[in-house]
Amino acid sequence: MVQQIKPGQFVQLEYNGRLLEGLVMPRSLYEDEKHITLKLKNGYNIGLDSGKVRLVKVVEYETPAQPIEEKSYNEIGNGPRVLIMGTGGTIASKVDYRTGAVKPAFSAKEIVDMVPEIGNIASISIKTIMNELSENMKPENWSVMSNEVYKAFNSGYRGIVIAHGTDTMHYSASAVSFAIENPPGPVVFVGSQRSSDRPSSDSAINLQGAVTFAAKSNSSGVFVAMHAGLDDNLVAVHRGTRVRKNHTSRRDAFESVNDSPFAYIDIEKGTVKQENETTPQGKIKLMPNFLAKASIFKFHPGISESLANAVFGGDLLSIIIEGTGLGHVSREVFPHIRSAITEGKFVGMTSQCIWGSVGMTVYETGRDLMAMGVVPLGDMLSETALVKSMWALGNGLDLGSVMPLNLRGEIATRRPVEK
Amino acid sequence: MVQQIKPGQFVQLEYNGRLLEGLVMPRSLYEDEKHITLKLKNGYNIGLDSGKVRLVKVVEYETPAQPIEEKSYNEIGNGPRVLIMGTGGTIASKVDYRTGAVKPAFSAKEIVDMVPEIGNIASISIKTIMNELSENMKPENWSVMSNEVYKAFNSGYRGIVIAHGTDTMHYSASAVSFAIENPPGPVVFVGSQRSSDRPSSDSAINLQGAVTFAAKSNSSGVFVAMHAGLDDNLVAVHRGTRVRKNHTSRRDAFESVNDSPFAYIDIEKGTVKQENETTPQGKIKLMPNFLAKASIFKFHPGISESLANAVFGGDLLSIIIEGTGLGHVSREVFPHIRSAITEGKFVGMTSQCIWGSVGMTVYETGRDLMAMGVVPLGDMLSETALVKSMWALGNGLDLGSVMPLNLRGEIATRRPVEK
Repeated sequence: MVQQIKPGQFVQLEYNGRLLEGLVMPRSLYEDEKHITLKLKNGYNIGLDSGKVRLVKVVEYETPAQPIEEKSYNEIGNGPRVLIMGTGGTIASKVDYRTGAVKPAFSAKEIVDMVPEIGNIASISIKTIMNELSENMKPENWSVMSNEVYKAFNSGYRGIVIAHGTDTMHYSASAVSFAIENPPGPVVFVGSQRSSDRPSSDSAINLQGAVTFAAKSNSSGVFVAMHAGLDDNLVAVHRGTRVRKNHTSRRDAFESVNDSPFAYIDIEKGTVKQENETTPQGKIKLMPNFLAKASIFKFHPGISESLANAVFGGDLLSIIIEGTGLGHVSREVFPHIRSAITEGKFVGMTSQCIWGSVGMTVYETGRDLMAMGVVPLGDMLSETALVKSMWALGNGLDLGSVMPLNLRGEIATRRPVEK
Repeated sequence: MVQQIKPGQFVQLEYNGRLLEGLVMPRSLYEDEKHITLKLKNGYNIGLDSGKVRLVKVVEYETPAQPIEEKSYNEIGNGPRVLIMGTGGTIASKVDYRTGAVKPAFSAKEIVDMVPEIGNIASISIKTIMNELSENMKPENWSVMSNEVYKAFNSGYRGIVIAHGTDTMHYSASAVSFAIENPPGPVVFVGSQRSSDRPSSDSAINLQGAVTFAAKSNSSGVFVAMHAGLDDNLVAVHRGTRVRKNHTSRRDAFESVNDSPFAYIDIEKGTVKQENETTPQGKIKLMPNFLAKASIFKFHPGISESLANAVFGGDLLSIIIEGTGLGHVSREVFPHIRSAITEGKFVGMTSQCIWGSVGMTVYETGRDLMAMGVVPLGDMLSETALVKSMWALGNGLDLGSVMPLNLRGEIATRRPVEK
């Protein structure tokens, strides 16, 4: 009986005496043949032993969507010219493409049909620049994004929206922040914490917020627009170098760290509220290269000697330490750090506390580490420091000079107020 | 002139035309002789080029304190018997011992003299069990703490307070949580985010909170007591397995993650407010061993192939992944994980988001990782998962069985409510 159940079918099944209805999911690479996964109407997936499943009926057979011919740069709507770039995450769709059931490419018309509000805010064009899951994004992908942003501004777009899976969106936003100096307008990353087929999906609201900021704000920079709270009327716009995904599932998972959100969008009124303005300090400049010879070393008690050796003695050229508290590690790690610095590698210090600033002159441990050449990175996020050092390595910059500088709002230039 | 300036002196100096007053700090191991560090009255340290320093006058010469003979187990005060253990952090002192200027060992009388309120809450005994900076704490230190806690309960103490540096206090609290099953009363870690010589020091308030909870609560378990906010009247008591240092410098840096604080202490009234109660489910049991063959792997885009190989192919027996979002890594890491699991190593998944729970059945990547044998660890903190796996390894427990279980409140047994 189980042979008749095919991925993409909406089915009613009997399983352990219960009647279940849902979408049969495609088998993933490492799943065995003895199980099937059913996506229930509430959006949750459950795994079933295929031997115990009895097919009651096929409710509907979902024909896999044919990729629609891409109509890039076709403008739809009224207002300033905004380009929406797709990177692989769903922008807005009845079925999330990550289920595998539908993998649509969108035309500008389709997306404006799905979220008609954005057609009243801007003249929308669409371009799919890659098709990659968020967790599989690599520095090479950041280069592609940066090149496309540069091209789009040179083609006269006022603002750019990049639809991106949420897992690594803050890494990508940080990367494009560094790669594009003096963008003439806003670049806004946007994602969705919920599958678009879930009743609580946030994708349409987030997209409206992102398009509103791209069309109406005069700010130069790279940002992330996501729900500000649980209220569907307020979208927060964070600086790309200051934002972190701080919750696995909440709609307001993205937060500005050691900074306030740069702006808020009132969705109903279509207005942008922002206190500060960023203006380009010169002509747009592209530095799109990244060298992935950097990593994060999260210190913890009982750190393995061989692991410390692999991190500091391996082929990495930049190591961002997530130290404890104000920026400390145990004395066992000192020799590893010293020899890495002697070999010319960059070692920067951030804090695993996430909030607050490292302060390496307060205690002896911090002073010892600084005397060895460890560079304190203030209140910079470790993820931002990592991306920045890959960018500095990729573009031949001197890390010792450039890492402590505030280039894109990533580090406070004055001591943050202690409370 | 500079030769006359000695560590421990309170001096007035002229430097670049400015008059500075402060405490001359001892030179740390790696500092050169061309600089001196001055601790200003506001508590901040500044480094000065000794060639440019002119000594105006020595305001006061601070005689280094002589270690006072320890009077362990000497009871002072009235009320239930509480033992305060010192591990190396300052409990309460005019000068923070980390400055190196004063390294006092306390007697029970001295501490009650300094924070007289605690003598009205409990009958206080003191024992210094080690003298180690927080960032230098190792799993061996956790074993010592656990053994001492076990001995103290068997000696009839009602509650135990452990004074600890804040950098790794949450790791230690988690460790003792696992090492002691069914403590008959509360074990309360306490620290101070500010040097005790700073006007805003929180050490006395935190200590009052910890002693109040140790003396008055009937709860069985290991906790952390620290400022609940900026209000000096409210101390929060967190579960040892649920707490994280989330700010480098704020007094309320410690927060319960994915959980509410277990209790609050009203300092002025001396009352404990708690909604739930934990009672021992049997006789106290000690499992104090830790094997440090475990580490945290924080995944990020552009992870180095050789680093992934070192982490998963090295001598670690347990690897706690801090994945992205709901618990993902890029496909490049898959082969490393698969071979580690094939070799019998434990690989568990937490999220670098910190808040929320991993959910590995939602997307294909999560399902693939589970099919390989990666164990999802729900809403457990990565630091707690690390400590728990070192404990499980040290006591010969099967990690695959024990890691997903809720032993000490470290993991939610039901799906957390999505908001």
